[in-house]
Amino acid sequence: MKKEITLLGAGLVGSLMSIYLAKKGYSVSIYEKRDDMRKGNQQGGRSINLALSNRGLKALEEVGLAEQIKRLVIPMKGRMMHDVKGNLTYQPYGKEGQFINSVSRSWLNEMLMDEAEKLGVNIHFEHRCSQVNLDTQALEFETPSGSKRIQSEVLLGADGAFSALRDAMQRSDRFNYSQYYIEHGYKELCIEPQQGEFAMEPNALHIWPRGRFMMIALPNTNETFTCTLFLDYEGEDSFANLQTPEQVEAFFKTYFPDVIPLIPDLTHQFFQNPTPSLVTVKCYPWVKNRTCLMGDAAHAIVPFYGQGMNAGFEDCRVLNELIDTHQHNWDTILPEFQQARKPNADAIAELALKNFVEMRDLVADSQFLLQKKIEAHLHEQFPKDWIPLYSMVTFSDLSYADALRIGQKQHEIMQKVMSKPDIEKNWPNLDFASIVEQLKA
Amino acid sequence: MKKEITLLGAGLVGSLMSIYLAKKGYSVSIYEKRDDMRKGNQQGGRSINLALSNRGLKALEEVGLAEQIKRLVIPMKGRMMHDVKGNLTYQPYGKEGQFINSVSRSWLNEMLMDEAEKLGVNIHFEHRCSQVNLDTQALEFETPSGSKRIQSEVLLGADGAFSALRDAMQRSDRFNYSQYYIEHGYKELCIEPQQGEFAMEPNALHIWPRGRFMMIALPNTNETFTCTLFLDYEGEDSFANLQTPEQVEAFFKTYFPDVIPLIPDLTHQFFQNPTPSLVTVKCYPWVKNRTCLMGDAAHAIVPFYGQGMNAGFEDCRVLNELIDTHQHNWDTILPEFQQARKPNADAIAELALKNFVEMRDLVADSQFLLQKKIEAHLHEQFPKDWIPLYSMVTFSDLSYADALRIGQKQHEIMQKVMSKPDIEKNWPNLDFASIVEQLKA
Repeated sequence: MKKEITLLGAGLVGSLMSIYLAKKGYSVSIYEKRDDMRKGNQQGGRSINLALSNRGLKALEEVGLAEQIKRLVIPMKGRMMHDVKGNLTYQPYGKEGQFINSVSRSWLNEMLMDEAEKLGVNIHFEHRCSQVNLDTQALEFETPSGSKRIQSEVLLGADGAFSALRDAMQRSDRFNYSQYYIEHGYKELCIEPQQGEFAMEPNALHIWPRGRFMMIALPNTNETFTCTLFLDYEGEDSFANLQTPEQVEAFFKTYFPDVIPLIPDLTHQFFQNPTPSLVTVKCYPWVKNRTCLMGDAAHAIVPFYGQGMNAGFEDCRVLNELIDTHQHNWDTILPEFQQARKPNADAIAELALKNFVEMRDLVADSQFLLQKKIEAHLHEQFPKDWIPLYSMVTFSDLSYADALRIGQKQHEIMQKVMSKPDIEKNWPNLDFASIVEQLKA
Repeated sequence: MKKEITLLGAGLVGSLMSIYLAKKGYSVSIYEKRDDMRKGNQQGGRSINLALSNRGLKALEEVGLAEQIKRLVIPMKGRMMHDVKGNLTYQPYGKEGQFINSVSRSWLNEMLMDEAEKLGVNIHFEHRCSQVNLDTQALEFETPSGSKRIQSEVLLGADGAFSALRDAMQRSDRFNYSQYYIEHGYKELCIEPQQGEFAMEPNALHIWPRGRFMMIALPNTNETFTCTLFLDYEGEDSFANLQTPEQVEAFFKTYFPDVIPLIPDLTHQFFQNPTPSLVTVKCYPWVKNRTCLMGDAAHAIVPFYGQGMNAGFEDCRVLNELIDTHQHNWDTILPEFQQARKPNADAIAELALKNFVEMRDLVADSQFLLQKKIEAHLHEQFPKDWIPLYSMVTFSDLSYADALRIGQKQHEIMQKVMSKPDIEKNWPNLDFASIVEQLKA
């Protein structure tokens, strides 16, 4: 007989995982701390839209949801860089036909919950998990109608960066754990449509790279853009020094002048919205007895590679595969899952931190843009042997750990290439075959 | 008017800090989770004795307690290495007159609590801190007679590696935190006196270095030795493979044959005592409003440099100095304290992890012992310009961060020295002055 499975968290990963499990015939109950977001009482200002790419799509495809979702996303085919004068530079993300997809977090989450419920998944809202016994797998919840105890057979914690299951694990012996906040916070701002149309090119991810800080903008299906300013909390250019409307206006005038006409209520939005922080969470083990962490609960990362959700969805796909491989034997499935995923979670955490530097600083550098151009050319000539790091992460399902390793090797090779004399002029004459050979060595 | 100060934890650091504060005229209350250890209900098996060295002694001296303590410690002047055949090699820790001191944790702690109470410090036992409000500095405790709420003006958390104050901080935004367990656990064993006398040389720290693992022994004032076996939890030679008396006996016969006659009830002790784990805790900030972490609560480290207590006592001394410097202004004292101590806490954490490798492996290596000998000679010739790392950490009050930095430079220089041809024979002819010059460069 198949087990009952208990999931903590009805977010993106919990909802998708419940669909996989329900399709396999499991009886699934989800316990979610918050109220049902489909009732429409959400708060704004926290990561409104996300970039869905290959790994996430592949995981949705396997439960038959990819086509449905593709109709409600906006393809972003490249980066549109804005300099301080408002000049634009465009750089495609990959080859023709390769793009990432801007999607609304709430829409996607609601759709996944609807699908889960159609398959018989029970979602219990306003159940805050207050206690987990890792030995007996008993759980305690606080609900509006008092506290409730349940017993779980297999417990999956998809309850996010501040996971209750992980909290219980952290109190057990020999649990390695780290939470590390970067020095930047973020602020979301909305660009309304102009005469009913997108105020900027909709099929791109817009970046205003400014060295220590940056702003980005992603399109929404209602013709708005969600801008996110990533800025130090403290220091010269920082949220600490943006305390008055005058300071905010002066700051935007200096660094983002082309945005000012697009956000008439800039200072109102700025002071209305919160300034959340950005954390990387790592831990090990993910498994104690028949309890297991997944998604952000196991590996919360910063958003700069657009891979948080994609990594979590890949967790679901891999766990589902292991259920088949190990024929529903959860005492084998869970340890195999953590062994398969932990190195990849560490790799994408590192890649995400590094990509912040690339986005906020390097994309404004002409040498860096030339390097990207040369790498794109290498990829065109040797499509299987030289895949740029961004494409390995975003457009393939090569493991993150392999992508990181190969990317480091590519970086070393390209350092040498870029130091050649007059590379700006001479790059078309490079011996591309021998460059690719170095990568194989 | 001077503030009231609330301390969490009546351990070594909390008790000593309360003495410093009481002597400055503060009204001090300590809240301790456990029962009064002076009632004599302690459990064994967990770090019975400690190595008190210069930093700890200096901090005790400043409150007039050093002489009193020196009478109840056993000086350990060097390392006594035991090989698998029971052959001994001795290596002094420093120069003549330099030694570390084996001291009983419980005796020292009890004495500090007695002294604190004499000065009017109020110690509330069996008060488990269940909640800390970092904004209002209100605290809640569970006690045998129900829960209790108090309000603190200045709150110091000296409540150890599993600190309740740190726990509250970890739930606040932008608190960096990591806990990292090494792969080894430990087991304490007792060597009884033989015919009323120490069974081995008492004025040494005994080490049985065995590569991946080791055993050490420290003398106690009652003529016993406390042995500690540090061993992997899993793997070939590991606690996992020591499940039966036969396995334990065979293991000791292979690796520690000279110890077998000294512990007649070896297997009984082995299975009686727990197998605790070893953790490194790092966090930042240590201060939120007028609350501050110190000692293990801020920086728990592994025991391999014998510096955990010494670092915590140095915290007390430095905090006390800052009270004078900043004239009792706690809004300045606490941030200055974390700024002064955080780099040193990170440094000793790293040094302690590295010293495990040195103790369990390198001290059995003849090249390494020669290097130590050459360094001792350098120190003798140039006592101020070349102080071996161990001496900087143990016999000086140079900051841990400086000791680490200088030690790394010494290591690089010594690598080159040791690679010279026939160094075993030729070392007395080295140009010592020029070696020391390299360190200054």
